[in-house]
Amino acid sequence: MWLSNKTQNTNLLQVTTPLSLYIYRPRASLTIFINLLLHQKERDTTREMEVMRVLHMNKGNGETSYAKNSTVQSNIISLGRRVMDEALKKLMMRNSEISSIGIADLGCSSGPNSLLSISNIIDTIQNLCADLERPVPELRVSLNDLPSNDFNYIFASLPEFYDRINNNKESLGFCRGGGESCFVSAVAGSFYGRLFPRRSLHFVHSSSSLHWLSQVPCREAEKEDRAITADLDNMGKIYISKTSPKSAHKAYALQFQTDFLVFLRSRSEELVPGGRMVLSFLGRSSLDPTTEESCYQWELLAQALMSMAKEGIIEEEKIDAFNAPYYAASSEELKMVIEKEGSFSIDRLEISPVDWEGGSICEESYDLVVRSKPEALASGRRVANTIRAVVEPMLEPTFGENVMDELFERYAKIVGEYFYVSSPRYAIVIVSLVRTG
Amino acid sequence: MWLSNKTQNTNLLQVTTPLSLYIYRPRASLTIFINLLLHQKERDTTREMEVMRVLHMNKGNGETSYAKNSTVQSNIISLGRRVMDEALKKLMMRNSEISSIGIADLGCSSGPNSLLSISNIIDTIQNLCADLERPVPELRVSLNDLPSNDFNYIFASLPEFYDRINNNKESLGFCRGGGESCFVSAVAGSFYGRLFPRRSLHFVHSSSSLHWLSQVPCREAEKEDRAITADLDNMGKIYISKTSPKSAHKAYALQFQTDFLVFLRSRSEELVPGGRMVLSFLGRSSLDPTTEESCYQWELLAQALMSMAKEGIIEEEKIDAFNAPYYAASSEELKMVIEKEGSFSIDRLEISPVDWEGGSICEESYDLVVRSKPEALASGRRVANTIRAVVEPMLEPTFGENVMDELFERYAKIVGEYFYVSSPRYAIVIVSLVRTG
Repeated sequence: MWLSNKTQNTNLLQVTTPLSLYIYRPRASLTIFINLLLHQKERDTTREMEVMRVLHMNKGNGETSYAKNSTVQSNIISLGRRVMDEALKKLMMRNSEISSIGIADLGCSSGPNSLLSISNIIDTIQNLCADLERPVPELRVSLNDLPSNDFNYIFASLPEFYDRINNNKESLGFCRGGGESCFVSAVAGSFYGRLFPRRSLHFVHSSSSLHWLSQVPCREAEKEDRAITADLDNMGKIYISKTSPKSAHKAYALQFQTDFLVFLRSRSEELVPGGRMVLSFLGRSSLDPTTEESCYQWELLAQALMSMAKEGIIEEEKIDAFNAPYYAASSEELKMVIEKEGSFSIDRLEISPVDWEGGSICEESYDLVVRSKPEALASGRRVANTIRAVVEPMLEPTFGENVMDELFERYAKIVGEYFYVSSPRYAIVIVSLVRTG
Repeated sequence: MWLSNKTQNTNLLQVTTPLSLYIYRPRASLTIFINLLLHQKERDTTREMEVMRVLHMNKGNGETSYAKNSTVQSNIISLGRRVMDEALKKLMMRNSEISSIGIADLGCSSGPNSLLSISNIIDTIQNLCADLERPVPELRVSLNDLPSNDFNYIFASLPEFYDRINNNKESLGFCRGGGESCFVSAVAGSFYGRLFPRRSLHFVHSSSSLHWLSQVPCREAEKEDRAITADLDNMGKIYISKTSPKSAHKAYALQFQTDFLVFLRSRSEELVPGGRMVLSFLGRSSLDPTTEESCYQWELLAQALMSMAKEGIIEEEKIDAFNAPYYAASSEELKMVIEKEGSFSIDRLEISPVDWEGGSICEESYDLVVRSKPEALASGRRVANTIRAVVEPMLEPTFGENVMDELFERYAKIVGEYFYVSSPRYAIVIVSLVRTG
């Protein structure tokens, strides 16, 4: 285990020397630290642009599209609903006279889930207002994702969305507002930086997005000679693994902490005091980043890639050089960064297990779900499709478009075999934050 | 001439019986009138949706794309620059302490012009602030067009846009803000209706857009049995023409006035008091809507279509049934609707002639530009390409994709021949308005 308890108890950000100089100093030094991170961000534009280019879901409506393979993400939105509703209720109770609410969904993607979170938020607000016998405030809704996201697809579904809101409003006994009480806009850009005007938001939501890093970590944060694909000496692996060197663990952890700090800092400028955020994403419940829930989907994908390398279909060096811009954070890391940044208090932090198909699991029952071989293989296929819809655009530039069918065919089988002997699960972090001040 | 002086002097909105009931009443009745129009809008959703579907520029980067054929629109933006700069100066002088400005560009389209107006606006504000030794306020920029517009294309060019703003800011001596003082969002929807939150905007700009109607006019506004393509008895024509029946003139005028009233009403809700709008679009300098500057580009397009109908390539009935959702308004009509609506005062209203290639013309010189035959034909080709980039998506559903090359080949020749004997021009209306109150 690369993170000893001692490291945990002192400071997780102490992973590379120069940054750690700032970390042990009291709160007053935080500004310098953040400025350093922001400055570092500026220097890494090329690496960030690279991730922005490939971090989008598979487009269209085909069999491998995100539109047809996004049930897991939809289930994660449902899993966070209770915490989100609770946060919205507290927000509305605190702001009894509010006439206009700014709402943002960060990482909305493009597909059947794009308007799901926003629909849920609006439903909840409309129901709360009906219960409290208050008029529904003006809703200023912002949908955000990276510029490579297919926003045209979302815009095409807006008329139907407005109709639904209005019908719902009517059924709750409000006057028909002709869609005039809800204004949806799209903002393209990385949420690891400012996106919205100062103090323009009351509620920020993000689901299945914050496990994506702004850039592929590099071995030494200060290394001047940065290749676009970082060299982490992570032989035969594409993410943290039991065989990865400590330097890889550290680089990944540092990149997440840097990103999450910038995320919080940006949102703290954009949210009004008392404003709230509910974030759900893939994380881990253990300190060890190499347990099954943290990394095993990547481990099996690396196995599929390596099997192809052994047959000479792809080059092994490419696997060694490829590292996914992903990180499954622990609650300890989250708490530490939140405390460091200092603008948010934690109202709730939960970790819920879901199976790889997105089904929720009672936390007590960690038993093996017994599947027949055909059932296991069918599950493997579905999981492979879900992961393909998300990671194919990342893998293509390195391994080539022509090997994708073969790769995910092998991956589906490997995952299916694994399902026959195991019941793998993700750990979903759900955190509800309040902007202090 | 279909609009007699008498009609002009009384009320242009008196074009159909039921609506005119409300028009002669004093200002107090305006609300009823507007509600009626808004209600009518609701009933016409199908017809509006039809226009929303086809009213977008030719996509991509090909020879017939809007991206490659948008010089006229770019010239119209330049033509309005002086009036826009003047309006921005007055806005900034009036709001000396303002820390955040809401700006919207309506009908931004998708191509090299999409960010041109916004760039001009930001340049002017930055220069004004440098002159006045004031910090540049936070700029909340909204880009609007119909949902069928290619917003993905715009988003892809945003990083370069932010870089340019920052470099400009630095060269003017402001601190580099890392793009954090300008927030661009996209809003998809018809500007003939609400788009933005109440009192969220300080400056609205729109160029080359307001001559497009929300729907194809129909013969009788109250007609219950509405076909998607309206029947205006406009035989062999696709817009108002010297041979069109009076009912067609009236239907077009009423549709424009209805749309423009809804436009003003919507913007009056969205602009702060003292907020400003600068609108430029194709209009006419005469009362007669059948003069060359008002309609001749459509007249020649109808000629091209009719020549194909005579050869049996397309059906003549389709030409009779097709009517462009376009209107070239006169300054008298504009003034009348602005006065009726009541929320805006006119700061400036100018009409400038430009030739069909977008070149500006000294108002005194109405002489024929002498062109050689090859020059005239080359001009004809360029004009045909410019118009094709805009109207092809409208024509395709009726006449078929397969006849478009042939149609615009003929159109280019007809326009070229016309350029040899004439120097056709458009009348560009530029109006600068202030939100009263």
